[in-house]
Amino acid sequence: MHDVHALAIRSIKASRALSALSCASRNKALRMIAEALIKRKELIFQNNQLDLDAAEASNLPAPLKKRLRFDESKLAQVCKGLEDVAASKDPLGITTLSEEITPGLDLYRVTCPIGVIGVIFESRPDALVQIASLTLKSGNAVLLKGGTEARNTNRVLCSILQDAAESAGIPRDFALLLETRDDVKKMLQEDECIDLIIPRGSNALVRYIKENTRIPVLGHSDGICHVYIDNDADLDMALNIAVDSKIQNVSVCNAEETLLVHKDIASTFLPQAAKAFERAHVQLVGDPVACSIIGCEPACDADWSTEYLDYKLSIAVVPTLEAAINHINHYGSHHTDCIVTHNEDHASIFLSQVDSSSVYVNCSTRFADGFVYGFGAEVGIATGKIHARGPMGMEGLTTYKYKLIGHGQTMQSKVNGDFEYTHQRLERPCPY
Amino acid sequence: MHDVHALAIRSIKASRALSALSCASRNKALRMIAEALIKRKELIFQNNQLDLDAAEASNLPAPLKKRLRFDESKLAQVCKGLEDVAASKDPLGITTLSEEITPGLDLYRVTCPIGVIGVIFESRPDALVQIASLTLKSGNAVLLKGGTEARNTNRVLCSILQDAAESAGIPRDFALLLETRDDVKKMLQEDECIDLIIPRGSNALVRYIKENTRIPVLGHSDGICHVYIDNDADLDMALNIAVDSKIQNVSVCNAEETLLVHKDIASTFLPQAAKAFERAHVQLVGDPVACSIIGCEPACDADWSTEYLDYKLSIAVVPTLEAAINHINHYGSHHTDCIVTHNEDHASIFLSQVDSSSVYVNCSTRFADGFVYGFGAEVGIATGKIHARGPMGMEGLTTYKYKLIGHGQTMQSKVNGDFEYTHQRLERPCPY
Repeated sequence: MHDVHALAIRSIKASRALSALSCASRNKALRMIAEALIKRKELIFQNNQLDLDAAEASNLPAPLKKRLRFDESKLAQVCKGLEDVAASKDPLGITTLSEEITPGLDLYRVTCPIGVIGVIFESRPDALVQIASLTLKSGNAVLLKGGTEARNTNRVLCSILQDAAESAGIPRDFALLLETRDDVKKMLQEDECIDLIIPRGSNALVRYIKENTRIPVLGHSDGICHVYIDNDADLDMALNIAVDSKIQNVSVCNAEETLLVHKDIASTFLPQAAKAFERAHVQLVGDPVACSIIGCEPACDADWSTEYLDYKLSIAVVPTLEAAINHINHYGSHHTDCIVTHNEDHASIFLSQVDSSSVYVNCSTRFADGFVYGFGAEVGIATGKIHARGPMGMEGLTTYKYKLIGHGQTMQSKVNGDFEYTHQRLERPCPY
Repeated sequence: MHDVHALAIRSIKASRALSALSCASRNKALRMIAEALIKRKELIFQNNQLDLDAAEASNLPAPLKKRLRFDESKLAQVCKGLEDVAASKDPLGITTLSEEITPGLDLYRVTCPIGVIGVIFESRPDALVQIASLTLKSGNAVLLKGGTEARNTNRVLCSILQDAAESAGIPRDFALLLETRDDVKKMLQEDECIDLIIPRGSNALVRYIKENTRIPVLGHSDGICHVYIDNDADLDMALNIAVDSKIQNVSVCNAEETLLVHKDIASTFLPQAAKAFERAHVQLVGDPVACSIIGCEPACDADWSTEYLDYKLSIAVVPTLEAAINHINHYGSHHTDCIVTHNEDHASIFLSQVDSSSVYVNCSTRFADGFVYGFGAEVGIATGKIHARGPMGMEGLTTYKYKLIGHGQTMQSKVNGDFEYTHQRLERPCPY
């Protein structure tokens, strides 16, 4: 158990120093971190083995043990990620607004770090490195709370990161480790020090955190993703997309949980789909019409709002495009939803009316991912609508400040009519 | 007392319809609202008189009664504001990212409305029209809770807005009125329906709201603004800015509360400043050095973190630029802070190191305002760092969605090596 307040104060100090660093020095630190991880990999593997043995002893489920493993291939992935982040464009110091308020009084809006970010993440220890690399590149200090199952691995990873950063001239407190639930509870009280909390994990965790802090939370909750097969769809393409979205990886948030089919093509499409899903051992539940066509089990109302994360799919037949959109907006989780159609008007209506962070035409829902989107890495997928939405890369870890450069202008001189507001857009970036 | 849940559901329905409206129809509604307000102004003035009489009867303080008044000049202001918002560029449908993931699979990020926004505002009834115009232009539905002292004026204004919107083909529920504290309490529970809460008012109100809701809050808390007079400052300019920032309007959040002066110029500058402030009846409190120079009352530690909103100013003499920056970051409220200097390096360090939403060089802190910044109007000034920061116009009322347009691509086909990610930037906006 730590003195979390003291850690938060150290994070603020570190964040002030980080915000003043050049992109070159942030990138140098990222590359030195990768080198240090490789140089000290045996130490990492040894500590990871301790966590794996403990997991074995306490009979943790196999998938969890798999996520816990940090081996050569994970190390390679992590170092590739660090290189990608180092190679990526600086998210800081970008002028996003440039305007003459009146001659000699210029306003600029420039991106800058948020400050101190608290991230609560799952049992994958490689996530620690990924998150720390994104917060470092974006000039933020981070408080990290990983899964307790990965305690030994997280400790050694974090200390290697801190040593490498320090030798690169970065404050070693750029990343600090929290370990217990009690630490998290204390972190949630630090609204004077911490600017943002990012919980990765269960819906329940996100709700708990939102209920217990005044700090803004960018949460990742359920992924109840839909594929809607329009009456103007190419049915072979539709089948590929519906199957891939469901089974390519059933345990991820961007996997399809509900299939919606337009009534005009239901009797042709559903029998083929049912065969394909049965071959893949996917359990099907449906609304009355779907049941009458493919004789699957009836779905209960809860099915439409359940994230199975498993070989199970709910199927509904809808009379119209509007009905499909209403179903998605009512039961969905605003994550990722797809329409399969060749009708441009239907695609356009679907894209504008479906209230989700990712809306797709003719491709698998599985593409909802920061790497796929080209963000290099992701801190998470935000299912809210504020600040950052959907896969969240470095841009989501920045904010901005307004810089106003004058020559002695006062409000009274404006009131006296000494000058008027011109509000002319300027074409130059902020000189400061 | 209302059935707030029912109102929130109506807001969601309205927001879905609003998100599908063209900019032309949103602008038409804004202009018809202005016409309707003028046509029915007598009714507004009558109801406003009821509120003014009640305020008189209960001896409300004069400034509050002044803010409560809705007369010809307020009406003219409000109509000008509606025209400005109607004339302003559409904040929706803007493509902010355009990228080829792989040939035939294109990703776009496009701005869209947030959805349903709850705004709690102060006793100025004209604020109701201003807020509703911004949420309408940005395609959002709004739940409005104004000051109880303005109940009659708010009721008539809101119903005029709803009638005008309806006759312009906009859902009349685009703006719905809440009236009691109990309504607010209920609104804070509607995290399934409401996407964002914007409280305008006291720090205490903002804290109360953050403590009692899972809904994201864009709060406006204290404005503890600083003016720092650098050793390289033009002292006449410094005096004008220091005085204007304090007295041009003492009761606003962007007024200066603390004056910081570099030690090298303190003995020359402070006596002139003291004279000017005394002429303006500003009470001065200072740190030991300031007191020794101008013989003012000593400041206690609380003074440095107090928003006076009055004819009072705290003064500190600092040994270095760094000391000034540390003072501001420690005691300030991240609102607006200014350096007066002719030294470009000092200006640059101040702008990058001061952690405030508006950082100024050589101009009055009073310019921190949405109108001055050219946003047409403002919903408030956000003192947090998430989503929107500083004066918040229409842009802060939008979010975005990712639109991915494919030709049948699946994740399995990627895994099979059928295609590689190219992540090429595209120059075209989203076709949908």
